[in-house]
Amino acid sequence: MYEKRILDLYRVKSGEKINLDEIDTEYGFLTQLQEFKKSTVKERLEERLAQNIKDLSEMQDLFYASDTYSLLLVFQGMDAAGKDGIIKHVMSGVNPQGCQVYSFKQPSAEELDHDFMWRCSLRLPERGRIGIFNRSHYEEVLVVKVHPKILLNEKLPNFKLDDTLWQQRYESIRTYEHHLVRNGTIILKFYLHLSKKEQKKRFLDRLDNPEKYWKFSTSDLAERAYWKDYQKAFEDTLRETSTDYAPWYIVPADHKWFARALVADIIVSTIRSLDLKYPVISDEQLKALKEAKRMLEEEK
Amino acid sequence: MYEKRILDLYRVKSGEKINLDEIDTEYGFLTQLQEFKKSTVKERLEERLAQNIKDLSEMQDLFYASDTYSLLLVFQGMDAAGKDGIIKHVMSGVNPQGCQVYSFKQPSAEELDHDFMWRCSLRLPERGRIGIFNRSHYEEVLVVKVHPKILLNEKLPNFKLDDTLWQQRYESIRTYEHHLVRNGTIILKFYLHLSKKEQKKRFLDRLDNPEKYWKFSTSDLAERAYWKDYQKAFEDTLRETSTDYAPWYIVPADHKWFARALVADIIVSTIRSLDLKYPVISDEQLKALKEAKRMLEEEK
Repeated sequence: MYEKRILDLYRVKSGEKINLDEIDTEYGFLTQLQEFKKSTVKERLEERLAQNIKDLSEMQDLFYASDTYSLLLVFQGMDAAGKDGIIKHVMSGVNPQGCQVYSFKQPSAEELDHDFMWRCSLRLPERGRIGIFNRSHYEEVLVVKVHPKILLNEKLPNFKLDDTLWQQRYESIRTYEHHLVRNGTIILKFYLHLSKKEQKKRFLDRLDNPEKYWKFSTSDLAERAYWKDYQKAFEDTLRETSTDYAPWYIVPADHKWFARALVADIIVSTIRSLDLKYPVISDEQLKALKEAKRMLEEEK
Repeated sequence: MYEKRILDLYRVKSGEKINLDEIDTEYGFLTQLQEFKKSTVKERLEERLAQNIKDLSEMQDLFYASDTYSLLLVFQGMDAAGKDGIIKHVMSGVNPQGCQVYSFKQPSAEELDHDFMWRCSLRLPERGRIGIFNRSHYEEVLVVKVHPKILLNEKLPNFKLDDTLWQQRYESIRTYEHHLVRNGTIILKFYLHLSKKEQKKRFLDRLDNPEKYWKFSTSDLAERAYWKDYQKAFEDTLRETSTDYAPWYIVPADHKWFARALVADIIVSTIRSLDLKYPVISDEQLKALKEAKRMLEEEK
């Protein structure tokens, strides 16, 4: 993997029609490549992941020091698709001072009293930092689209449930992300593409394992019943909100090791492509540093 | 005044070219009307203002109870144009629990580490409330356009000072405001149109009056030297960001009583046009209220 042409396979082009049924949940587009070998892919990717985690830690230091961009990573996917695991494993090497994770739950009363993007605006990463959204403003066109009765809580004026409402939401998201990107935020969005079969396996694993009970909620099963509606909502979202400036990546999620390696690869190659530099020290600043050193050394 | 056709005179149409030199700073477009009488206008408007302040207080209660919209009032204008005075007088009757004023000063280090609209997003009014921005995100296309060196503090990536940068800012503002309006925020923007002569008079008044010394800063005089540049920046802003959904009003500001009456009129007539209602109580709720009353009365 790693080369741009391969990562590009996983990237949704602006306006591209997506049929998730046709996209492999194990390896995705990788299987299209001649050099793909199922027998060795796991070993190779695990090596790459280890290297990427190391690289990411160094690159974050540079990212912080160069103080030019902020990086926003958005993770969406069905329950048990592996969002938490990816965040935990891929970001395990980074300094928490330069990285903040925010998990969006059901909106609070205060949040519902604002426009639907407000609560995400509050948590945007500062320049030099990495911000991770575990779920995000995209819930507003995913879970809300599957269960439109949620809209009643949002007390929208002149509320009418029709396609215009969703088109306006996609437009709001696109234009706001465009604004953020122009002002220095890099946005990468990951849709974790899990099969219904693998979700069943992971749910059963949680139900068979007392240490994982807490991860299961009966509402997870209720949502599973809406699988097709969710797939449709994801397809619409990917098509309408993947842009050149803030792309979605479809990450096959049936193998945790594969999803983690791919996400790490995309993040590392994106930061690398920025060609960041440590701030250059002027001659004057250098003189001041030398003077400071001299004073410290002469201190009694 | 008061009728929509008159208030509409002061409203900037979307894309309308504005030449501020040609717009009267005393009464504005009102002088175009046959019924305009300079001799009686002050008395009439002071009466209207008193009535509007009373109405506004009642309407705010309804605004809060109906819990449907939020109202955002943006005030911009040169120093001494009367922003603080208008806020103080027009809003003097409203309940502070449903009204929050935010005065934007120079951005903090934290604010500079976000996109230029972030600090305004944080302070947006909740549903049912009135939010007042004393200066606003518009500073980013006003003072910053007059002094583009400020942009260096904003650490924009790929920074290039050209017209595209301003066009993108106008677009960011338009699309974000559109999003807010669609989701229940009503936005009214007031440009206080002061003459250079009246500013001089108000500055001298501050300098002659020890109780007003604190209102004067020598930087005010420095900015006065950029008068023409500011007028140009205001003209561009009014043309590019006045929209049907979030209009700018040009408020003649040489007479404080005139500006206050006009702003109050616009706010009151806007809220009135929403035709808000107190929440309707269902039969079931009514029964519960009666039951509560009975229990309280029987309490020993």
